[in-house]
Amino acid sequence: MEFTVGQIAEVLRGAVEGDASQRIDRLAKIEEARAGSLAFLSNLKYEHHLYTTGASAVIVSRTLELRHPVSTALIRVDDPYTSFTTLLEFYQQATRTGKRGVEEPAYMAASSTIGDNHYRAAFSYIGENCTIGNDVVIFPHVFIGDRCKIGDGTILYAGAKVYAETVIGARCTIHAGAVVGSDGFGFAPQPDGSYRTIPQIGNVVLEDNVSIGANATIDCATMGATLIREGAKIDNLVQIAHNVEIGRHTVVAAQSGISGSTKIGDFCVLAGQTGLAGHLTLANRTTVTAQSGVGKSIKEEGVLLQGSPAFALRDSLRANAVFRHLPDLERRISQLERGANPPEKS
Amino acid sequence: MEFTVGQIAEVLRGAVEGDASQRIDRLAKIEEARAGSLAFLSNLKYEHHLYTTGASAVIVSRTLELRHPVSTALIRVDDPYTSFTTLLEFYQQATRTGKRGVEEPAYMAASSTIGDNHYRAAFSYIGENCTIGNDVVIFPHVFIGDRCKIGDGTILYAGAKVYAETVIGARCTIHAGAVVGSDGFGFAPQPDGSYRTIPQIGNVVLEDNVSIGANATIDCATMGATLIREGAKIDNLVQIAHNVEIGRHTVVAAQSGISGSTKIGDFCVLAGQTGLAGHLTLANRTTVTAQSGVGKSIKEEGVLLQGSPAFALRDSLRANAVFRHLPDLERRISQLERGANPPEKS
Amino acid sequence: MEFTVGQIAEVLRGAVEGDASQRIDRLAKIEEARAGSLAFLSNLKYEHHLYTTGASAVIVSRTLELRHPVSTALIRVDDPYTSFTTLLEFYQQATRTGKRGVEEPAYMAASSTIGDNHYRAAFSYIGENCTIGNDVVIFPHVFIGDRCKIGDGTILYAGAKVYAETVIGARCTIHAGAVVGSDGFGFAPQPDGSYRTIPQIGNVVLEDNVSIGANATIDCATMGATLIREGAKIDNLVQIAHNVEIGRHTVVAAQSGISGSTKIGDFCVLAGQTGLAGHLTLANRTTVTAQSGVGKSIKEEGVLLQGSPAFALRDSLRANAVFRHLPDLERRISQLERGANPPEKS
Repeated sequence: MEFTVGQIAEVLRGAVEGDASQRIDRLAKIEEARAGSLAFLSNLKYEHHLYTTGASAVIVSRTLELRHPVSTALIRVDDPYTSFTTLLEFYQQATRTGKRGVEEPAYMAASSTIGDNHYRAAFSYIGENCTIGNDVVIFPHVFIGDRCKIGDGTILYAGAKVYAETVIGARCTIHAGAVVGSDGFGFAPQPDGSYRTIPQIGNVVLEDNVSIGANATIDCATMGATLIREGAKIDNLVQIAHNVEIGRHTVVAAQSGISGSTKIGDFCVLAGQTGLAGHLTLANRTTVTAQSGVGKSIKEEGVLLQGSPAFALRDSLRANAVFRHLPDLERRISQLERGANPPEKS
Repeated sequence: MEFTVGQIAEVLRGAVEGDASQRIDRLAKIEEARAGSLAFLSNLKYEHHLYTTGASAVIVSRTLELRHPVSTALIRVDDPYTSFTTLLEFYQQATRTGKRGVEEPAYMAASSTIGDNHYRAAFSYIGENCTIGNDVVIFPHVFIGDRCKIGDGTILYAGAKVYAETVIGARCTIHAGAVVGSDGFGFAPQPDGSYRTIPQIGNVVLEDNVSIGANATIDCATMGATLIREGAKIDNLVQIAHNVEIGRHTVVAAQSGISGSTKIGDFCVLAGQTGLAGHLTLANRTTVTAQSGVGKSIKEEGVLLQGSPAFALRDSLRANAVFRHLPDLERRISQLERGANPPEKS
Repeated sequence: MEFTVGQIAEVLRGAVEGDASQRIDRLAKIEEARAGSLAFLSNLKYEHHLYTTGASAVIVSRTLELRHPVSTALIRVDDPYTSFTTLLEFYQQATRTGKRGVEEPAYMAASSTIGDNHYRAAFSYIGENCTIGNDVVIFPHVFIGDRCKIGDGTILYAGAKVYAETVIGARCTIHAGAVVGSDGFGFAPQPDGSYRTIPQIGNVVLEDNVSIGANATIDCATMGATLIREGAKIDNLVQIAHNVEIGRHTVVAAQSGISGSTKIGDFCVLAGQTGLAGHLTLANRTTVTAQSGVGKSIKEEGVLLQGSPAFALRDSLRANAVFRHLPDLERRISQLERGANPPEKS
């Protein structure tokens, strides 16, 4: 796949500065780009790379004022980041040959149905009474249990496991090894200290455009549904317990864990390795910084939280700043004490 | 499946208040229940839902005194929670059609044996010289390595992976994607800074009634056995390293990690995202709160730990309470210092 | 498999003290060893076990001076640990019958090639245009996507998943359920608060002798490569985000997470459950203690870090020591205040 700088500029409705006839055969980061590469500059923090890059062409803003001469061609556009993302999408569509058809041996129970234009890989498994839409892509070793529903255009990568009764919307992505619908961790303590397993008869519902990361785990509800709303993005190795609700367009970064029955609002961001206790409610647009642990509900929208246990980010930053010189603080107190109560023989 | 309130009360040996002829077709949480639903009230914290619930009937304690009129029927029993769990179990048995038989293609080496009344799903794999009991349920994509032993009534969900030599007791549950018996993380540093892999020749032993969560990982012992004792419950994404021992009826919540050779007693509770250093011993009934990190052995039974590094919960709560206003503390010290050593020209 | 103490001593070029004719049929830890077992003593912290062990023979240092009589035979060598590791390797080679050949049904696209002396298990899957070396071992339910390259002697355990375009070196070990090459977590926020998925067109490159733990996840690069250099050891349930680089012979312990574009040097050690923010650089030989969270780049080599947020281990230990008695500190301040500003009516 090879295009000229001019051809690409035309697609992006951009203006070329420099040699428009140069040939581009790959996309690259500006700091790693070599001849034949097209890069982009969006964040001006990285502007210095523009003057040293080996790229044949760089997509930049129409308003960028050069501070030094450049040896690369420029394609000037309104929004370099969006233009570049468009090219990435184009590249991906061109190279990820859309897999279609059925590879044998694949297993699908006779009572299940699947729409047009699908891919069912070798060793994929679809249980009884499933209803699966059009344009669904099912990679090898995917397991879909009985009575599941899966919407149009959803893709399940290798080894994704979907327990019985799960409902998955349209255009969802389930990455490799993710588990959707495992039993919630429900055990009733008995008088002798042992535990009785509480049956988990609920399910998991993923709305449209949800993404579930590799090896993430989403437990079914004890009763009712564990619910991931439209557009939510769940990263790798995240744990979502029974009866949790994740709001629309909320992002949960890798290795975070959300305990049972907690409800997270829309447009929230949980950074990596965060933990949330059970039965909490987090208002819309709550942000939790990495490794924080939230033990209380948040009612006000837009709050930033940090720490374990977490409190307001601003206060947490200040407390941490003092924490680092606690030994100093103690020394100062001791000195004050010596001043207030001088040793008898001084 | 539909029963009357009266029929259900009879099964539970409960007393009906209200219309016993109403039809019930589902179980639900009291706050989500609608007509046709049966709910329960055990924790009086949620009593207010009783007066507004849409449930057709609610299971309550014989001793509950109503503070307002109710529009739902009541089934009065001795222990609402246990009664409801019994109904959940009944429901689950009725709906999870017991899978039996062999779906093709399934793989089992000729040298292995499996008992009566089992399910071997399509794409399940059983290696050489395995001995597998009666009533074992093996979902698709389960891998069982050579020379494994698995007891009666154990269920392995989709994609569970059991390395060679593993021993699994009766009535265990291995959830989807769990890995049992992977090599311990053992590497001997060499003079040039590289690492030599130390062969891991031990195995994993799970006693009876053990539950292993989705995508959890349990490493085999370097020598001897990594041991999970009777009734222990291990949640999703937990890491258990080589030569660890987990005591009877101990609970390890999601994303916790236990380092090599640590021994945890009986009836312990590790909350979510906890970490334990290696070569520790934790006494029976130790509790570790969420996100805590334990670096020292605990000899006394019944201790509660918090923090990273963890210490006694009571002390940790107090220290954290002060931590939040550390900047205040520093201000107070500065003020004292100004008092004790006033600026020369004030 | 049974050898005499004398035969083993000969292999190790060691000297026997005691009965060289005793028969050894297993390797064991010194504290767990029984008759017929061979153990070793390297760390003198465990010397007391030498005088009570049930082992038939123990490998010890030539220079060890006994403080009590022993009832076990001794094999004296220069380096007991290395000698014992050699025996473990020998034992493992003898017992892990090298699997070879193809079990049916296995899937390999006609456009792919694989070298001599390989094992392709039942239900293993190899996509289009892959190039796979000699002596490669592929367990059941392994998925290898299109256009992958895998070097000689690499082993992929059950259910390992390798996305398209991945490059894996020679003598690598990919443990069960590990995911290599999943999409990076890249989403561009849109004006309405939803997210647009940024195509991830890069790949993952593992150099030689890399080990990836069970259920670990390694995301592909947005562009370019996520790179794990020679000899690096990645433990179970680790998350490595897009465009990360891990240096040579660096060790990352279980459940650690490394955010996008962070570069870690050679010979580093990240203990369990650590987290690293994105776009950082860590110098060679950096050590991060368990559960720590690193938010800043480290330029100096050999630094030890602790805490969340992490700073120098020595300072962190001191600050934590004071943290535990913060309530005390506050009391002392209050007392000083009362001294400096005594209550009016005292």
